[in-house]
Amino acid sequence: MSVIGIDAISFYVPKIYLSIKELSKNRDLEYEKLSKGLGLEKMSIPDADEDPSSFAANALIDLFIKNKINPSEIGRIYMGTESALDSSKPSATYATDLVEQYLEKDFGKRCLKNCDITDMTFACIGGVDALQNSVDWISSNTGKKAIVVCSDLSKYSLNSTGEYTQGAGAVALLISENPSILSIENQWGVATKSENDFFKPRRTFEKKELINEIIKKLDLDLSESEFKKVFSESTFWSDKNEKIEVHKEEPVFDGQYSNECYIDRMDEAFEHFNSFKKIDFLNQWNHLIFHLPYAFHGRRMIFNNWLSWVKKDEKMKVLVQEIGEENSEDWVKKAYKSNLYKNFIKEKIMPGEIASSQIGNMYTASIFMSLLSMLSHQLQNSNNIIGDKVGFISYGSGSKSKIFNGTLMKDWKEKIELVNLFDNLSNRQEISFESYQDLHTNKNIDPITNHSIRFSHLQDSTNSEGYRKYKL
Amino acid sequence: MSVIGIDAISFYVPKIYLSIKELSKNRDLEYEKLSKGLGLEKMSIPDADEDPSSFAANALIDLFIKNKINPSEIGRIYMGTESALDSSKPSATYATDLVEQYLEKDFGKRCLKNCDITDMTFACIGGVDALQNSVDWISSNTGKKAIVVCSDLSKYSLNSTGEYTQGAGAVALLISENPSILSIENQWGVATKSENDFFKPRRTFEKKELINEIIKKLDLDLSESEFKKVFSESTFWSDKNEKIEVHKEEPVFDGQYSNECYIDRMDEAFEHFNSFKKIDFLNQWNHLIFHLPYAFHGRRMIFNNWLSWVKKDEKMKVLVQEIGEENSEDWVKKAYKSNLYKNFIKEKIMPGEIASSQIGNMYTASIFMSLLSMLSHQLQNSNNIIGDKVGFISYGSGSKSKIFNGTLMKDWKEKIELVNLFDNLSNRQEISFESYQDLHTNKNIDPITNHSIRFSHLQDSTNSEGYRKYKL
Repeated sequence: MSVIGIDAISFYVPKIYLSIKELSKNRDLEYEKLSKGLGLEKMSIPDADEDPSSFAANALIDLFIKNKINPSEIGRIYMGTESALDSSKPSATYATDLVEQYLEKDFGKRCLKNCDITDMTFACIGGVDALQNSVDWISSNTGKKAIVVCSDLSKYSLNSTGEYTQGAGAVALLISENPSILSIENQWGVATKSENDFFKPRRTFEKKELINEIIKKLDLDLSESEFKKVFSESTFWSDKNEKIEVHKEEPVFDGQYSNECYIDRMDEAFEHFNSFKKIDFLNQWNHLIFHLPYAFHGRRMIFNNWLSWVKKDEKMKVLVQEIGEENSEDWVKKAYKSNLYKNFIKEKIMPGEIASSQIGNMYTASIFMSLLSMLSHQLQNSNNIIGDKVGFISYGSGSKSKIFNGTLMKDWKEKIELVNLFDNLSNRQEISFESYQDLHTNKNIDPITNHSIRFSHLQDSTNSEGYRKYKL
Repeated sequence: MSVIGIDAISFYVPKIYLSIKELSKNRDLEYEKLSKGLGLEKMSIPDADEDPSSFAANALIDLFIKNKINPSEIGRIYMGTESALDSSKPSATYATDLVEQYLEKDFGKRCLKNCDITDMTFACIGGVDALQNSVDWISSNTGKKAIVVCSDLSKYSLNSTGEYTQGAGAVALLISENPSILSIENQWGVATKSENDFFKPRRTFEKKELINEIIKKLDLDLSESEFKKVFSESTFWSDKNEKIEVHKEEPVFDGQYSNECYIDRMDEAFEHFNSFKKIDFLNQWNHLIFHLPYAFHGRRMIFNNWLSWVKKDEKMKVLVQEIGEENSEDWVKKAYKSNLYKNFIKEKIMPGEIASSQIGNMYTASIFMSLLSMLSHQLQNSNNIIGDKVGFISYGSGSKSKIFNGTLMKDWKEKIELVNLFDNLSNRQEISFESYQDLHTNKNIDPITNHSIRFSHLQDSTNSEGYRKYKL
């Protein structure tokens, strides 16, 4: 079987951000805790006319253009997202429609006509699912190429404990045989358990109760006919459904519990992974790439595994020399802060955290942004990483973990140079806390910046209510 | 490469239905038009405590039990749906959680622990996507088995032109090597174009405008503080988002336009399919299985292809003998009603329509219910169909078509006998038009029937707002 994997990468993050310093000032949070404790510096905030399909379109177009991809070579574009804009029409189709329009001048109309396009949904792990399925598809269809695009808006309630982890953006991956960047091994550890650690439910309300609430608050005395009047000739109140189901972008979540689920699924997925071919992963993997809801999440989640691994090894002597014998209650805390662990982080985890600090949570795209961050860091430092093993630890709430690994290929550098990640992240515009709040609360404001591909407006004519229109 | 395909099938439809006769009486529709014109007889209506995850759980449990599947053999359960209950947590996990609970007594806790589970979304074609990806996965992982489950609620607005096509239910397919029922050939014709023929958008409202609408209707004179009071301490009004996004199960659609999209994508997908290996499909395929939004949809959609095919063939003489030369304006209509076409339908299409007439639209599950209907009909008539070619014409609005085909295997009969489709459909309870309306408008009523697996209630405590609880 031929080698299959990631041949090219592109990304898009909104051109505006809120600094964590600004957020902590306004929320009375200790900046050092967020910055030094969680690794947070900036949060990507979508502009007033952006959405996950426009992020995806931007990342896809960048991938096509920079890598001179002929769209006729692309057999599928699969999108991982948990920010879908419609319950039936995949968000991927809004994005690929824009890609076709953009490429029309060079490749004619409908250049993706025979391309298989769809959405895959499982919280933050949908993009990894799309990747695995695309690798399998290429294995069964020699010569084909696929694209995986992950795009999400990570938005939490104002004042919630998730607020400082927000982020947004998309990453697109070209998947092919004989890939330039990373070959992916067909060994996938999987663990699933239905959990309620993080989800985005619809909130159900009784229409009559909503009106009664207003009546009570205002101390009104409505006649039956007045009550009925409220329900008549209204696009909101008039349909006969007695309930209203409200969609909110903000999830219901329990951060502590979600960490437990992350660790449990990860450990179970490792067990499954090792049942195929045992890997001493902390030794054999040169780079650890995690799903990162915040920059320092991975180093926190893997620490217990690292400590067990150290205890079974010669390294335990080094650790004891540094922090003493395991007898005091805070020994584990000391181990977390030890130089031994710091060096491990520096070598294998930190390079993948850099972009997350600058962007925040990208949900499905986070793990691939972490890969791109690691590669961009190695490029910046002129490190030779060809042949290195990269291990991936992915997680989606609700809950599932997948563990897989790959090998860095000889042409990775040329492809990563095209991306120019860190320069791009440096060239963004900081926004004020006020602007951030206006955008968060969906105030009708003008976009702050001006870019090529944008979400423009919602149609409102018959039969196209809620259909999304974009401008190029 | 080994032969891969469908090894077993199960289904679930709600135990209650509304008769089309009853609907037409109450809607002042011509029953004959719906019955003779579209093939509609009964619409499956979900009971008050059912939803697409409970449908899926029922179909899955039936598949496991009847086929004595050991859950440790199942490497993935992929769900096609456009009725997802959450924007992040896949509806599949709610269903597989119930399956694990049900199987616990025989297989212990977490018997699907290492099973890869997810949702795939592209209107009615998500299940076909799940099937294609599962076939590829088995090709890359010899010895593995997968399950595809399609589950949906097809609900249209009261009095809309979609109302009489409603339906609900789930179909589950066991996918394996050396399948008992149908081998699937790895030749997939695909065509995609972003369209707005049918979609399920969120409807956006400005909170202030909603209140202003009430003020105006009731001729109220509110002070600023009273106005603010409405927005305070309310789970509905208080969050700072100025807009409310409403989810509705009912789609925005344009039936005529969607038919055009169906035909255009189908023809483009055939062209793509033939670019790999040309098939004279109307000759070579013994059975045509369509995505059926209503029973007679397939025979209407394929008619033009049939007519072009007849015109290029000896059969044209037979047609001319029956309805005369092609000179009058209504010649095409006559051709549609000709015995030549009727016989074609009877042989290749009608067997797949029977269940649809009794259930209505099942969205993602419709195409596989059509396969099950055809097989159940052949079983009932003791027909020998081993080795027959089955062609699949799938469609999802928004829009995509996939064309693929397979061959009937020698043990199909034993597996279809287990399903007992037609008996199951005969043993349902008719409900009154009043009950139908109560269920449709989400009145708080008790379930009409009593079954094993049911959706029970929405949780409402902190951090589990909107989390769905089910009872076994």
